[in-house]
Amino acid sequence: MTSSASPVATLRLNPKAERRLKGGHLWIYSNEVDIAATPLRGMQAGSQVVVEAANGKALGTAVVSPEQLICARLISRDSSQQLDASLLVHRLKVAMSSRELWYSNGCYRWVYGDSDGLPGLVIDRFGDVVVIQISSVAMENLRQAVVDAVNKVASPRCIVLKNDGKLRAVEGLPEYVEVVQGALEDNCAPLIENDTRFMAPVIDGQKTGWFYDHRENRAVLNRLVKGKRVLDVFSYVGGWGVQAARHGASEVHCVDASAQALDWVEQNAALNGVEERLHCWEGDAFEVLRQLRENGERFDVVVVDPPAFIPRRKDIKAGEQAYYRLNQQAMRLLNRDGLLVSGSCSMHLGDDRLPDMLRTIGRELDRDVLIQHVGSQGADHPVVPAIPETRYLKAVFSRVLPTR
Amino acid sequence: MTSSASPVATLRLNPKAERRLKGGHLWIYSNEVDIAATPLRGMQAGSQVVVEAANGKALGTAVVSPEQLICARLISRDSSQQLDASLLVHRLKVAMSSRELWYSNGCYRWVYGDSDGLPGLVIDRFGDVVVIQISSVAMENLRQAVVDAVNKVASPRCIVLKNDGKLRAVEGLPEYVEVVQGALEDNCAPLIENDTRFMAPVIDGQKTGWFYDHRENRAVLNRLVKGKRVLDVFSYVGGWGVQAARHGASEVHCVDASAQALDWVEQNAALNGVEERLHCWEGDAFEVLRQLRENGERFDVVVVDPPAFIPRRKDIKAGEQAYYRLNQQAMRLLNRDGLLVSGSCSMHLGDDRLPDMLRTIGRELDRDVLIQHVGSQGADHPVVPAIPETRYLKAVFSRVLPTR
Repeated sequence: MTSSASPVATLRLNPKAERRLKGGHLWIYSNEVDIAATPLRGMQAGSQVVVEAANGKALGTAVVSPEQLICARLISRDSSQQLDASLLVHRLKVAMSSRELWYSNGCYRWVYGDSDGLPGLVIDRFGDVVVIQISSVAMENLRQAVVDAVNKVASPRCIVLKNDGKLRAVEGLPEYVEVVQGALEDNCAPLIENDTRFMAPVIDGQKTGWFYDHRENRAVLNRLVKGKRVLDVFSYVGGWGVQAARHGASEVHCVDASAQALDWVEQNAALNGVEERLHCWEGDAFEVLRQLRENGERFDVVVVDPPAFIPRRKDIKAGEQAYYRLNQQAMRLLNRDGLLVSGSCSMHLGDDRLPDMLRTIGRELDRDVLIQHVGSQGADHPVVPAIPETRYLKAVFSRVLPTR
Repeated sequence: MTSSASPVATLRLNPKAERRLKGGHLWIYSNEVDIAATPLRGMQAGSQVVVEAANGKALGTAVVSPEQLICARLISRDSSQQLDASLLVHRLKVAMSSRELWYSNGCYRWVYGDSDGLPGLVIDRFGDVVVIQISSVAMENLRQAVVDAVNKVASPRCIVLKNDGKLRAVEGLPEYVEVVQGALEDNCAPLIENDTRFMAPVIDGQKTGWFYDHRENRAVLNRLVKGKRVLDVFSYVGGWGVQAARHGASEVHCVDASAQALDWVEQNAALNGVEERLHCWEGDAFEVLRQLRENGERFDVVVVDPPAFIPRRKDIKAGEQAYYRLNQQAMRLLNRDGLLVSGSCSMHLGDDRLPDMLRTIGRELDRDVLIQHVGSQGADHPVVPAIPETRYLKAVFSRVLPTR
C-alpha cells in the first residue's frame, strides 16, 4: 500500500537493517530490504525512493539500482528531499567550497561520489575544462541536469562526458566519450598540480585523464629530490617523474607499459623544460626493473605507483604478492641510502600491509627500513568515516639504509 | 662457558625467541631470555652484551636493563659492534642527514631513540641549541660521549641535558636539568617551525620544550586558516595557534591549564606580531569548552591536541572516553561549516578510533563528517615498521557540515 499510495516509492528495510545507515553509512544491500513489503523487482533502476526502517520510520531518500548488490544509496536523510537540479547545484557548491579552500588554482577532483552526496558521479576540474564521469542509471537520467549545474556553478569553457568506466556495464549503461560543450585542443586539458604544468589526456587517457589523488604525496616527494636520480615506475603521464625533474632531480627515469603514456610524459617534460633530464622505458614494469638491475643501475629514489593489484576482495592474496614483488624489486634498485615511495590505490590493501611488507623485504635484503611519512588521498577525495570504501590510497615513504 | 670466555657477556634467548628480532624488532623481553644459561640477575644495568639465539648463533649487540620488562635493546646486528664514541658519531651523522633533507633550517628532532639506533636517547635541535634527553642507564653511562659526539657533528653553541623524564626513575636514574655548554637566554631556545618563529622553554617547559612531531600537521592547517576564527585547545606554547594567526586567522583563542604556557603563547605571538589577534583562556580544557559554548561562541576551526589520554594499555577505555568527550565538545563549538583537527599522541589509540569516534559524534550531533586529511608524526620521528610503539601521533582533519 505504502508504495502505491505515495507519489514516491518506498523501500522498506528488514528489522535492524537501519543500524548501519543510522551510524553514518549511505549504502543499502539487497539482502537488507524487506522484499515482501517492497519488492525490488518492481522498481525502476535509477528511481528515487523513501527508505523506511522496519517500523515504518522514514530514514531518507535513496536512488535505487534494484539488480545490484548495493541496491540503493542514500542521497539525503530528509525523506522529502529529491535529487534534482536544485540539489545538484547545491551539492556542487558545497563540494567546491572545500576544494577551493585547499586548492586555489581550479584544478581538483570537484565531486567524489558518495562523499559529496552524489553517488554515481565523479567530476574532475582542470580550470575551465570539466570532465564528468557517470556510473549509475540515476545520474545518467540526470545527465543534462548535471551539465546544467556544472555550468551554473563554474561556467567552464569545455565539458566532457567521459562515460566509459567499467561500472557502467554493470548498470547496463552504454560506454561513450563526448565533448558536450566547447572544444579540447589535442584532446588534452591543461592543469597545474602543486606548481608543475601538465596536459591531461582527458579523451584517450585513463579515467578522467589525470589522478589528482596523489597530489599531496607528490608535493612531499618534490621536497626531497634535488640532485637525486629518480625512478618512476608505472609513470603513466609523468605525475611523479616530471614534477621530480622540475624540482631538481638530476635524472628521472619513467617506466610504463604504454608507449602513448610515455609520449605524454615527454610532452609534459617539454612543457616544463626538463626533457633533457628525463628518460623513458617502455615495457612491463617487473621486466624493466629486472633489466635495470641486470644493467647495474641504481637510484636515490624509486617511486612505485601501480594500478590496483587488488581490484576485488578475492584478489587480496595474489595482489599482495604482486605488491611484495614490486617493492622488493624497487628496494633492490636503491642506492646504499635511498628513498622508496610505495604507492597503492587498492582499497582492499590494509593500512598495515605495505609497512609490514617493507619490513620483511628489508630483512630479506639486509636493509633497515625507516618509515618517514605515510600519505593518503588528497582533501579533494574526502572520506566518509562510515564507508571504508571511500578511503583507498596509500603512499609510504621509507628511508632504506644498510642494516645497522 | 660462552659468557665467561668472552670479554663481552652473552644473553642467550629461549628457543624461537629470536624470531621477532629477525623480523626487524629491536627489543628483548625478559621472559625470552634463557636465564638458566645467562642469568639476567648477574648483569649490570647499561652493560653491553652479545645476543645469541638458542642455538648459539650470534644475533647482534644489545644494551641491557636487567630489571625491566624490556630487558635488552639491540643496537647492532653485528655482534662485534659496540655502542661507543665512534658509533655515536656515526649514528648522529646518519640521523642528521635525513633530517637535513626534510628540514633545512636546523630545527628538528635529531635523534628519536630506537628508530635511530640509539635506544634511550632523544635529541632535539633548535639551530645552535641542542637539548638531550637520556632515559637509560646505558646512555647515562655514555653521557660525556654523547655530548662530545654532538659537538663533533654539529658544534652547537649551547647543549642542555634535560634529564627529567619519567622513564628515568624506572631505570633508577636521578632527575636533573643542566646546561652543560654555553648559555641560554631566558631559559629558552629560538626556533623556526614551518615559517613561524618561536621560543621553546627548554628548561621549564614540557619534555625538550617543544613538540616537533606535529610540524607537518601544523603546516597543513596553515593553508586553511586565512580569515578564520580558530580555537586551539591544549595550546601549550602556541605551536598551532600562533602559526594559525601568522597565516591569517582573523582571531585565535588558545586554551591551556597552565598560566606559564599561556605567557609563552603571548610571547610567541608578540614575536610574530600577531598578539592583537590572539586571546588566551586559562583553565581545564573541558571546563573552558563548556563555558565557551554557554557563551554562544562558535569557531570556524577547532584544534584539539591533548596530552596522551592513554599512557598505558590499561587506560584505553577511560582514555577513549576522554577523546570522545573532547571531540564532542569541540564539534559542538564549530560553525555550520567548520574544520575540526583532532590530535592524539597516544600510541595505544588505534588508527581507526578517532575517525570512528568522529563518525559517531557526527550522527549524535546531526552533522556530516568528511575526513579530508590524516596526518602523523613528521619525518624526524621515523617509524621502525617492526616496532608499533615508534608510531604514535595522529591528526585527523575533518570538515563538519549540516547533515545532508
